[in-house]
Amino acid sequence: MEKETNKPRTAPDKRVVIENVEPEIDGGRFPIKRVVGEQVWVEADIFADGHDELSCILLYRKEEDTEWTPVPMRPLGNDRWRAEFIVAELGRYRYTIQARIDLFSTWLRDLHRRLEAGQDVRPELPAGAALAAAAGARAQGAGATLEARRLMELAKDLESKSDMLEKVARLMGPDLTGLAALWGNPELFVRYGRELEVIVDRVKARFSAWYEMFPRSASPQPGKHGTFKDLIARLPYVAELGFDVLYLPPIHPIGKGLRKGKNNSLKAGPNEPGSPWAIGDETGGHKAVHPELGTIEDFRKLVAQADAFGIELALDIALQCSPDHPYLKEHPEWFKARPDGSLRYAENPPKKYEDIYPLDFTCKDFKPLWEEVKTIFEFWMKQGVRIFRVDNPHTKPFGFWEWLISDLRRQQPELIFLAEAFTRPKVMARLAKVGFTQSYNYFPWRNTKWELETYFTELTKSESKEYLRPILWPNTPDILTEYLQFGGRPAFIVRYVLASTLGASYGIYGPAYELCEGTPRDPGTEEYKDSEKYELKHWNLDNKHSLRHIISKVNRIRRENPAMQSDSSLRFLKTDNEQLVCYCKQSGDNAVMVVVNLDPNHVQSGWVDLPLEDFGLAPDKPYQMHDVLHERHYLWRGPRNYVELDPRHVPAHVFRLRRYVRTERDFDYFL
Amino acid sequence: MEKETNKPRTAPDKRVVIENVEPEIDGGRFPIKRVVGEQVWVEADIFADGHDELSCILLYRKEEDTEWTPVPMRPLGNDRWRAEFIVAELGRYRYTIQARIDLFSTWLRDLHRRLEAGQDVRPELPAGAALAAAAGARAQGAGATLEARRLMELAKDLESKSDMLEKVARLMGPDLTGLAALWGNPELFVRYGRELEVIVDRVKARFSAWYEMFPRSASPQPGKHGTFKDLIARLPYVAELGFDVLYLPPIHPIGKGLRKGKNNSLKAGPNEPGSPWAIGDETGGHKAVHPELGTIEDFRKLVAQADAFGIELALDIALQCSPDHPYLKEHPEWFKARPDGSLRYAENPPKKYEDIYPLDFTCKDFKPLWEEVKTIFEFWMKQGVRIFRVDNPHTKPFGFWEWLISDLRRQQPELIFLAEAFTRPKVMARLAKVGFTQSYNYFPWRNTKWELETYFTELTKSESKEYLRPILWPNTPDILTEYLQFGGRPAFIVRYVLASTLGASYGIYGPAYELCEGTPRDPGTEEYKDSEKYELKHWNLDNKHSLRHIISKVNRIRRENPAMQSDSSLRFLKTDNEQLVCYCKQSGDNAVMVVVNLDPNHVQSGWVDLPLEDFGLAPDKPYQMHDVLHERHYLWRGPRNYVELDPRHVPAHVFRLRRYVRTERDFDYFL
Repeated sequence: MEKETNKPRTAPDKRVVIENVEPEIDGGRFPIKRVVGEQVWVEADIFADGHDELSCILLYRKEEDTEWTPVPMRPLGNDRWRAEFIVAELGRYRYTIQARIDLFSTWLRDLHRRLEAGQDVRPELPAGAALAAAAGARAQGAGATLEARRLMELAKDLESKSDMLEKVARLMGPDLTGLAALWGNPELFVRYGRELEVIVDRVKARFSAWYEMFPRSASPQPGKHGTFKDLIARLPYVAELGFDVLYLPPIHPIGKGLRKGKNNSLKAGPNEPGSPWAIGDETGGHKAVHPELGTIEDFRKLVAQADAFGIELALDIALQCSPDHPYLKEHPEWFKARPDGSLRYAENPPKKYEDIYPLDFTCKDFKPLWEEVKTIFEFWMKQGVRIFRVDNPHTKPFGFWEWLISDLRRQQPELIFLAEAFTRPKVMARLAKVGFTQSYNYFPWRNTKWELETYFTELTKSESKEYLRPILWPNTPDILTEYLQFGGRPAFIVRYVLASTLGASYGIYGPAYELCEGTPRDPGTEEYKDSEKYELKHWNLDNKHSLRHIISKVNRIRRENPAMQSDSSLRFLKTDNEQLVCYCKQSGDNAVMVVVNLDPNHVQSGWVDLPLEDFGLAPDKPYQMHDVLHERHYLWRGPRNYVELDPRHVPAHVFRLRRYVRTERDFDYFL
Repeated sequence: MEKETNKPRTAPDKRVVIENVEPEIDGGRFPIKRVVGEQVWVEADIFADGHDELSCILLYRKEEDTEWTPVPMRPLGNDRWRAEFIVAELGRYRYTIQARIDLFSTWLRDLHRRLEAGQDVRPELPAGAALAAAAGARAQGAGATLEARRLMELAKDLESKSDMLEKVARLMGPDLTGLAALWGNPELFVRYGRELEVIVDRVKARFSAWYEMFPRSASPQPGKHGTFKDLIARLPYVAELGFDVLYLPPIHPIGKGLRKGKNNSLKAGPNEPGSPWAIGDETGGHKAVHPELGTIEDFRKLVAQADAFGIELALDIALQCSPDHPYLKEHPEWFKARPDGSLRYAENPPKKYEDIYPLDFTCKDFKPLWEEVKTIFEFWMKQGVRIFRVDNPHTKPFGFWEWLISDLRRQQPELIFLAEAFTRPKVMARLAKVGFTQSYNYFPWRNTKWELETYFTELTKSESKEYLRPILWPNTPDILTEYLQFGGRPAFIVRYVLASTLGASYGIYGPAYELCEGTPRDPGTEEYKDSEKYELKHWNLDNKHSLRHIISKVNRIRRENPAMQSDSSLRFLKTDNEQLVCYCKQSGDNAVMVVVNLDPNHVQSGWVDLPLEDFGLAPDKPYQMHDVLHERHYLWRGPRNYVELDPRHVPAHVFRLRRYVRTERDFDYFL
């Protein structure tokens, strides 16, 4: 040990420290996420011993580029520095920082101080001249002839005996100092030890409205199995509602062995269709289409037609097999076996899922299995699918997802992966870190004001905002929350408004949602009675209680207001009533404020507090609150204003702030 | 790029994630600090995909050992795990974590759940038996014969058809499960990617009371230059005051060239002694002793005599030279030069320090200089010095300190280095990280209640507590704060009590402090009038206003109360008066509470809030507050109690909590 350390180890000219870089996830182990056109703000603590001036540079590049683009950082005080860059293209970017002692700036600063104190600075000039000349030589060597000439002139000027104050005034301009800093000694640069990554997704990764539906229930004829063609006929309805992602539960052949019947009964009757998540029969598995839905060509037509409506298809990838899936025969080594050699169906003891066999991603010869699973995604990418909702990713190894998603996204950076992992917080965070674009989350169970404020502050303000993008679902085929079961239509409106305004990305499982389907299988469960998971349904879309008009309107409002297309500006405002939650989002001039009555049973009223200054509002002038959901206008004044919400009529306000209110001065004849 | 990634990269059996390990400084770049006998608590987020049970192990070892000591970690909930170990010896320790899927525990948990649900578990037994047998074989292979036999018996038992419930009851005992976990498959272990370090200091690094004095002012005869012999005669006084470190400003020859006179005047008169920080003359530099102080033998005698009083010498190492220092002639290459070849004296433009030449630690051939500086420390280590106070370390490269301190401490792990860097927070933190044992800090300028609470909460509760140990100085030869200038004797008592009770380590510059010397050179400066830095002083130690008795008492209280020997338990308590600050420290049974009146001019009173439960006090029983500083006893009851402090008599209470109060039941004849 002694031997190792009895020589000085550190180059003494590497004196600059760069630390506490943000954003940086787990010491750079994972990338941060952005969408095309967004900014990446980078900050770091940068300092050296002593009192020298520093020059700090943010470097960024697209991953495949070799050249860094430098951006000068600016000091924020307390040795913190900042700069930003825009990620203009899909794919991956890298960024890092370099910094050095800025000898010329230090020299100039000291010169200036000496002059101000009336000292004779002539003995100091040669040092500055030498620095300028060295910078000039470097510029010359790099072919920057013009810059080199200016630096050389500077050096000569400093050596001459002309008037000192005039000289320094010229020098202090940012122009020359910047030039001398730019061409400073590159050997003095200290580079931050890590290159940090940014995954750049398309805008839909941040802003989208999903509609989930079972294609087999799409037939206009009750009792008849729906088809992709029926789904094409349903597209105008989905488009009218304003959704831009249509997400289908698995569309593959369904196993017959141990098929589940109505309401998850253990034995299916002869005509029962089974659960779409029991994937595979003798005709095929994850790359096949359920024959009753149509053909793969029908599916491609659906993709194309949806595209014409501005709707993108999303598929559910559930990596598990029915007992009839071809994998069981062809690759028994991909499944866990009992000592007697029989394959193991899914279990979470004491629960048994005998109609489903999980793939064993940690089996001995796992590579062929991983490669095969990749071809499933590639198959559907070839059919035009670019959005995958992944079922239960938290029961497969993190390393598998990291490998799979990064590989597929290098093929096609438009891909979006949604993680359906309703599990412990750290596991959900890890899945987002290893590559999932969006994440289901605990929103379904966050109902009270305190819960909503705490949870959404965590999601949008803590470090997780850099890598985990929440998508808010008020319901799913597995989740009919008690709030919806008990609250009736007002509850469905409340939760819909929350999902679509708290979250730039949200989705509903319909038509169950817009038709306010709220009956559970049993009390105390979140399963739907007569769940569509096990049977065909026929929905009456024209039911007069349908929320379709509200949904359509909210989705239009979302498209018209940039503030609602991102979660980063989300901010909760104070109200004096525990049942009234209030929050706002801003984007440039556009400001939206939402007030929701969380009580589906009673009228609630109270006072809300607006941060006038942040909204650019004067404390003494009236302003207009335009409820764009109900097309009502309110004149408010000052920070505290009264709100009253009746769950039967107006459970929520979605206000757009209109700063300007007309006065008599606007009247034609006033002047 | 594509090529690199078209094969699965992760071993699928490495499924466990270990992250957010604490304590860990800057991703493991720097060690944490402890003193001998302290605990290191280690926590981490540890989890895997799916629902398997985990076995998580903290590993630690002394740096020079090859074998790790394993400590099983326990789950705290939310995937957080914890374990701790004790650092028993001086030097360096390392720690890391490993974790694996615990197959046997998972199997057993599932078996238990199946049994509870009334399922037939017989088909599951062979899997458990196989795991037990494999564990047994491993134990056998490692020579753990007894453990191997028990595991083999377990395997056999599981294969037999005996009563199931009885079998499981036996299995569920921690004993057998632990054994199976211990001998689980080592290939499943995932090791945390970093080994983290602990520097282990002696207890004095955490708990010490320093007394700084100028040896040249130690003569009993006014106007005569003090000597080491005079200092030996002063030792009983220092010991009586209760200090255990005696710290001397530089004791080297003082330059004559451009020597500073009284009150920092530019020219010294013929008999003026100069500043001890202008080090070196023709007789020697940093390894020589100022002839008027005595000889190196006298110094060694001083060290030995001090030791007899339980006092350790600390030296000030100021790495700078007077114009007469031999280095200037022998090694001009170690100094910065002007273009005309003359060496550069110290400057902070426009300020000039013409009596001092700084060493240039980044000079071209820096290694010989660094090595030479090391020999300065080694020289004084040979004279018995183990504590160094380093002057202005923030003007030398961090890399230099990291190299120097780690090298010297490997030679002698008892060494203590105190960084005198009154500079920006991040630079101070860095110096602590690179190796300084203790740090000066902003205490002198934290006077109000809010300032004290905020600053000491940061020092004792934020991550910096792991590497930065504050030592509190209410004054130094450079710092006579305005609070002391304006507040008179009460202010000196207040700041003394704060320093010695907020900080397990503190120091004063005396006799200026105990004699309440509060006159500045000019208004608006923190320099002393007629500062000892530039002249000899004669102090009247017997002045009746001296704080010597208070100091002596407080230092005894500190030794008697373990709570005061560490800062980790420091906690502020509420008072309803902004001038009353209240805090407590605890260690086991020992609890100390301090209330200080920050106002040196007026009586202040108010109510203080005690967390009774944390002190083990019943809400309905009286308890005794024993002011150990003034030897007064108070009977209190309940959490809120009244305090009144008069700065002229009792500016502060130092309470020791006495839980037990005598009642009639204790009276001899009661029963």
